[in-house]
Parts: sequence; structure tokens; C-alpha cells
Amino acid sequence: MNTRDTLYADNDGQLVIGGCKAGELVKQFGTPLYVMDEKYIRDICKSYYKVLDEKYPDSLVCFASKAFSCKAVYKIVESERLGADVVSGGELYTALQAGMSADKMYFHGNNKSVKELSEAVAAGVHAVVIDSLYEIDLLDSIAREKGKTQKVLVRVNPGIDAHTHRFIQTTRVDSKFGFSVSDGAALDAIRAILAKKNLAFTGLHCHIGSQIFELKPFKIAVDKMTDFIKTLNVELGCTVKELNMGGGYGITYTSEDKPLKPYQYVEAIVDRLTEDIAEKKISAPKLILEPGRSIVGEAGITLYTVGAIKDIKDVKKYISVDGGMFENPRYALYEAKYEAVLANKANAPATETVTVAGKCCESGDMLVADAKLPKAESGDILAVLSTGAYNYSMSSNYNRNSVPPVVLVNAGKAEYIVKPQTYEDLVSRDVCPTYLSED
Amino acid sequence: MNTRDTLYADNDGQLVIGGCKAGELVKQFGTPLYVMDEKYIRDICKSYYKVLDEKYPDSLVCFASKAFSCKAVYKIVESERLGADVVSGGELYTALQAGMSADKMYFHGNNKSVKELSEAVAAGVHAVVIDSLYEIDLLDSIAREKGKTQKVLVRVNPGIDAHTHRFIQTTRVDSKFGFSVSDGAALDAIRAILAKKNLAFTGLHCHIGSQIFELKPFKIAVDKMTDFIKTLNVELGCTVKELNMGGGYGITYTSEDKPLKPYQYVEAIVDRLTEDIAEKKISAPKLILEPGRSIVGEAGITLYTVGAIKDIKDVKKYISVDGGMFENPRYALYEAKYEAVLANKANAPATETVTVAGKCCESGDMLVADAKLPKAESGDILAVLSTGAYNYSMSSNYNRNSVPPVVLVNAGKAEYIVKPQTYEDLVSRDVCPTYLSED
Repeated sequence: MNTRDTLYADNDGQLVIGGCKAGELVKQFGTPLYVMDEKYIRDICKSYYKVLDEKYPDSLVCFASKAFSCKAVYKIVESERLGADVVSGGELYTALQAGMSADKMYFHGNNKSVKELSEAVAAGVHAVVIDSLYEIDLLDSIAREKGKTQKVLVRVNPGIDAHTHRFIQTTRVDSKFGFSVSDGAALDAIRAILAKKNLAFTGLHCHIGSQIFELKPFKIAVDKMTDFIKTLNVELGCTVKELNMGGGYGITYTSEDKPLKPYQYVEAIVDRLTEDIAEKKISAPKLILEPGRSIVGEAGITLYTVGAIKDIKDVKKYISVDGGMFENPRYALYEAKYEAVLANKANAPATETVTVAGKCCESGDMLVADAKLPKAESGDILAVLSTGAYNYSMSSNYNRNSVPPVVLVNAGKAEYIVKPQTYEDLVSRDVCPTYLSED
Repeated sequence: MNTRDTLYADNDGQLVIGGCKAGELVKQFGTPLYVMDEKYIRDICKSYYKVLDEKYPDSLVCFASKAFSCKAVYKIVESERLGADVVSGGELYTALQAGMSADKMYFHGNNKSVKELSEAVAAGVHAVVIDSLYEIDLLDSIAREKGKTQKVLVRVNPGIDAHTHRFIQTTRVDSKFGFSVSDGAALDAIRAILAKKNLAFTGLHCHIGSQIFELKPFKIAVDKMTDFIKTLNVELGCTVKELNMGGGYGITYTSEDKPLKPYQYVEAIVDRLTEDIAEKKISAPKLILEPGRSIVGEAGITLYTVGAIKDIKDVKKYISVDGGMFENPRYALYEAKYEAVLANKANAPATETVTVAGKCCESGDMLVADAKLPKAESGDILAVLSTGAYNYSMSSNYNRNSVPPVVLVNAGKAEYIVKPQTYEDLVSRDVCPTYLSED
């Protein structure tokens, strides 16, 4: 376990998160429970701006809110000067409800609906990130109807294949996202935008992948994007006011992961961008960065109660907990690796390797395939680390399980930021045609 | 497309489901939209009882409700004389709310919580299906507290490895579910149950896998289970009153699938069971079957609106729709195959192979990897077939997208059975600690 000032085991072997003992959290809120470490979220945000304020002040960090969208998280990141990357009407609505300024929002997506684009324009989002030719016509006509001129960025594929799980690669030329630079599609798209009266071409966006552990792909991406900026200057005589480099910074899931410090990715990007600007003689664009996972991922810890334990002789030991793929589908989706600790025996040495299984009626419902743990007993509290990103946001009611609540911890205080989902909530949208009751 | 009396293309090339034209459904309810064909659900239920009434009347079909749990579906299947297999407190609650009799319910799961077991006993479910030694003690003490004797079945692994996707195999000896027959674990569990005052050993349960296309694994399973019944008669002198053979009957997702008729699986099971009873001289148990996917899978069709179309020269053509992994995660989870048709051009010949992509900001968000379609245009209605099982039930709010509504169609009528999820619903559990607003 990577400890920090807000995550450690105390002398009694109790896991302490944000000053709150895991055992106390479980007593108060039950399990399964998503716990979010507020100070750690803020620390990461601050670390980004420390680099940017010093080296590239004309910049904005936008929280890629698909990693964890709820009102409280938008409030926290906005108070750290961040904006938001939103990808749906639901994210836009939530961010607005949290009081975030629409002027700090970028609206993304490969297939935004007419309704979503209308809502984005009406709300006054700073920019819509155009992803297809279809969207150019559509957005222009929506903006015209509303008597507005909408700023747009264009998502381009610089053609970098960052080495991650193939399902989270996003900038191969074979992608549902964006326009390729290499085949001229991006240039054509910008030409089409420049011809539209109600769209204002403002800049470029790229996103080279997720959970990347090296600096090199980011540096190459900056090179390719500044090359393309130069091309646009020359070919179309147009200025690129904003350069949005997306996110993708790797985080620690298990001790096998050796990522850099989050701010080091930012540093690499701004250093290379500064060099490229001087070298290529282009005017300095405003820099937008969109980290998501790196802001909330390690801040999240999920607490479970150990239930059934099944030791299949000479085969495997299963430890079942009260969560599963309904609240963390990442093993089922990507065979993602996580680290688990017994939160009430956090100082005991690991003595066995077990499989942590969820409670869903599906064989693939696992949380940790090979957790190294001290001997676990039914009733123990199991903590899975680095669950802050793409767990709550991907949660479902599979097997009609309720989505667990989320508590925010800080300096020994714990409060709900997402309340528990009740049985009544589960059936709240169910309706029965009257004739069914007459059977 | 496998047509049927409730699913065909009319002369105008409009897809008609349950007597409702797809275009009319979209006009009335919007997209994405889950459509469920009531008559087809009823037809499948009736086909099961046609076999059972004739050949093995002492039987009960329980709908494996994890495939699709909502009040209306429980009402429909109960009116066709089915009970329910429930796997969580949420499913139990929903089935009870729908008015289903608890006496026709079996409660499953590898790690039922104390709360769930208490609710199951309190509701009077017919049987709890015991899955671990831990649960034996727990359930006995819960039943004792409530002054009840709870009937239980024991989930056993007969050790059959039906050939399906490895994530949906469930009866290998390496399984989080049940007790193995071969290593004596099942016998030990039953011995432990017989010693409990508040548990009544009632029978055995097995489930050999999902989406199985052959009869042989089911026949072998019956052989193994009847062998084990004989063993129990001899070794423990106890009778097995109920034999629950689970589900797992394969359905048609694409024209490559050539499953048998659903009732043929039932026929194979009852014929073999009848033979085994005579041959092994055991007393005939009540037979329980738990089909889920085969009841609702092909009855479901999801309707989408085509949005962005991206033809990447010499690479691939992407057609993006307004759904995605938030409402059908089965491609992302299992690379599941589906068949798609253009519901407003259903008679036009397929002229191209395209990838149907969802709208989520994730490269793996696909619905159909290689759909053969006529030339699609933005605004067309795309129908994906056989989405009735494990789509709505696995749906999430990923990317803060709303779960689509479900309409039930029958004889030209269409009514909501699950209402649309609004933006307000999405934030309904979000709360902000007051100090966050004081920043």
C-alpha cells in the first residue's frame, strides 16, 4: 500500500482515510461504501496549478468528469480553479447544478444528441469539441436558431498509439473519435467550420489514451499538435487560440504500477509546448488539460464486509464481499488489477493469495483476482484501493443491487456526497400497465 | 433476422414489433428505447409448461429475474404460472411489490447479506439456496430468531464444463458458487444442514452455465444430480424433495446462432430425469427450472437513432447511435455479438459492413462490431435484436447518461413498464456538505 498523510494504518492496524478510521466509517455508513479523500483530490489539483502557474499561466485544468460525476466533486474541483470536461447532458446538468460556471466547460463526445448540443449552447459552455462532420452542420444550425456563435474545438487524431489496454486506446486512426490529421480529415473539418457563420473555430483537442505511464507519448503528441497548428497557420491562415491536450496520466492501482507524480505529466507537456512554440514560431495557445482518473482515482477507497469464504482444496480460495461488478465493473470489463487490504488488520503480514469475489450471480464477478492478504475471516473489513475513478461512475443496479453511497472524508470528518439508494429508489420508475393487474 | 408473428418488416420496410411500427414507437417514446414483446414472453412461458404439464406435472418454472427485473415482467410471468429466482434484496423487493407470491421464489447468491437473508426469511420465500458453509450457520440463526424453519436447497457443482464464454461458465470446480460433489464438500454441507434445527433440507440446485446450445450437458447434469440424490438416500438416508436444474438455454443473438427451440431443453431434461428416476429407483423430486435469458432475451429489441457516421477511408465505417455501453454493456464485457437492422429500411438489402458505436467516451463502447446494413443515414432508426436479457438489468449511468425507458408492446399497443430517467433523477442522491459551498 502506498501510504500518504491521508491514508495509512494506525498502531492498532486500522486503516485510516482522511483522518477517519475504516471501522468507524463502516459502523456509521455500512458497506459497501465508496470513500473519497477530499484533501488528496485537492492536493492533486494544486500540484497541477503549481506547475502551470509557474511555467504556463495561460492555462486551464478541466476535470474529466466521466471519472466521477457528482455535485460535490464539481464543487471541490471548481474551488481549486478547475473547469470541467463534460460528455453528456447529464454531466452538464450536474456540473451546472453544482454551481460551476459553464464558461469553464468543454463539451465532448463522438455522438452528442440534438438535445445535448442545444443544452450546451443554451448553457453557454465555453466550447463544444467537434467530433464529426455531421456535428458541424447540426451545431451551426442550433447556434443559429438560438442567435449565438458557439466556440468550437476540433478533436483530432495525431496518430499516436499509446500502449495501454486496447479498449482504452483512443488515438489510433481506427477510432470512432475525431478526425485524423494524416488523411486530411482534420483540415477538411476545420475548413468546413470556418465557413459556418455561427461557429467560431477556437482550437484543437486530442486525447492519446488512458492510464499512460510514460512521458514520451505526451511529448510526441505536443509535437504533432504544434506541427498541425503550424499547418493551419500556413494553409488556412487561421490562429489556434486553444490547445486542449486531454488527459490520460497513469495512476497507481497496485504496487506493480510505477507512475510518475501526476504533475510530472503536466510539466512534460508544458515544457515541450514552450519549446515547440519558440522553435516553430507559432503564437502561444491557451493550454487546456483534462485529467480525470489522476484527480480522483487514488483518492477513492471502497470498503466491504467479508462474507462467505470458500477454500477449494488445491484449487483456490475465494473471499466474497458485499460488493461486486455492480459497483466496480473494471475487472469484468478490463481484467483491471487492484490492491486490497484488510482494513481492520492492516498491519498484519500477508500470508495468503486469495480471489476477492463479488456477490453478483456471474462467474466473472471478481474484484481482485490475486489479493495478498493476512488470513481473512467473515466480518472483516476489506478495503480496495484506488477505486475513485470509473467505479461509482460506471456503477449499475445489476442483480438489482443498490449503488453504494459515497462519503467524503477530510480531517476526521465524514459526510455523504451521494446518499444510499433504497429499494424504493430501485422501483421508482417501474410502472405496470393496468391490464397486467387484471390477469 | 428471425421473423415471427410479432416481429417482421411490413411492406413499407418498417420493422413491426408486437403490432407497433418502430417509427411510431420512436415518435411517441424517443430513443434509445428498450421494447419488450409481451406476447413472445408469454409464448415462451407457455411452451415450457406445455412440455411440463404433459410429461412432468410436479414442476415449477422460475424466471431467473437477473435477466430482467422490473415489476411488470414479474406480473407477466406470474400470470403464466411462473415463480421467480431472485438473487438480491432488490429483486426480492421488486417481485413482492409486483404481487408475486413469496412461496414461488428461490433466493440465490454466493454471498447473501445478513439483511437479505433476514428479508428472505421474513417474506417467506419458498427456499433459500445455500451456497457456503458460512451461510448455513447464519441462516439457521436468523430463522431461529424469527421462530421459523426455513426450507433450503443446496447449490452443488456436478463438475460439468459447458462450452460457453469463460466468464459465463459456472460449474467448474474452480467456482465461487456452490459445493463440489466430487470432493465431498456438498455431502458435508448437507450433513451440516441436517443438524440445524431451523433449516429444513429440501433439495438440490445446480446451474451448469449460460447460453448453452446443446442438450448433452443438461442430460449429463441430470445424470450427475440423480446419482447424487441416490448417494444422499444411501449415505444420509435423506430424501430430496426438489431438484432445481437452473437455466442456461441458448438463444439466438445473430443468424450464426442455431439454438434449439427453448422447450426442447426442458423436454431433454424431463425425459432424462424420468428415465433416471426409474433406473436408479429414487423417488421423483419436484422439478424446478430457472430460465431467464430464454424468456426475455429475444423478446427485447432496442431502438436507436443514427447520429454521426464516420467513414475512415480504407479502415472502417462507424455508425454512432444514441445508446452505448451504459444501456448494453455486453459487447464491452464479453464482445457479445448482436444483429442490427435499419428499422425504417428493413426490406433494403444489406450493402455494407459497419461498426455500430455507442456515444460513451470510451473506445471500447461498441454495440455491434460488424453489422451488415443497407446504407445508413443520420436520422435512421437502428434496431438491435435480442436485447431483452442483461441489457436493462445491467444498465448504468456511465457518462451520466440516463437509463432508457422500457415499453411493453402487444397487439399494437405500447405502454411504459419502466419510465424515462430524468436529469433530476440523476442528481437525486447527490448531496453537498455545507462547508463545500462556503469555499
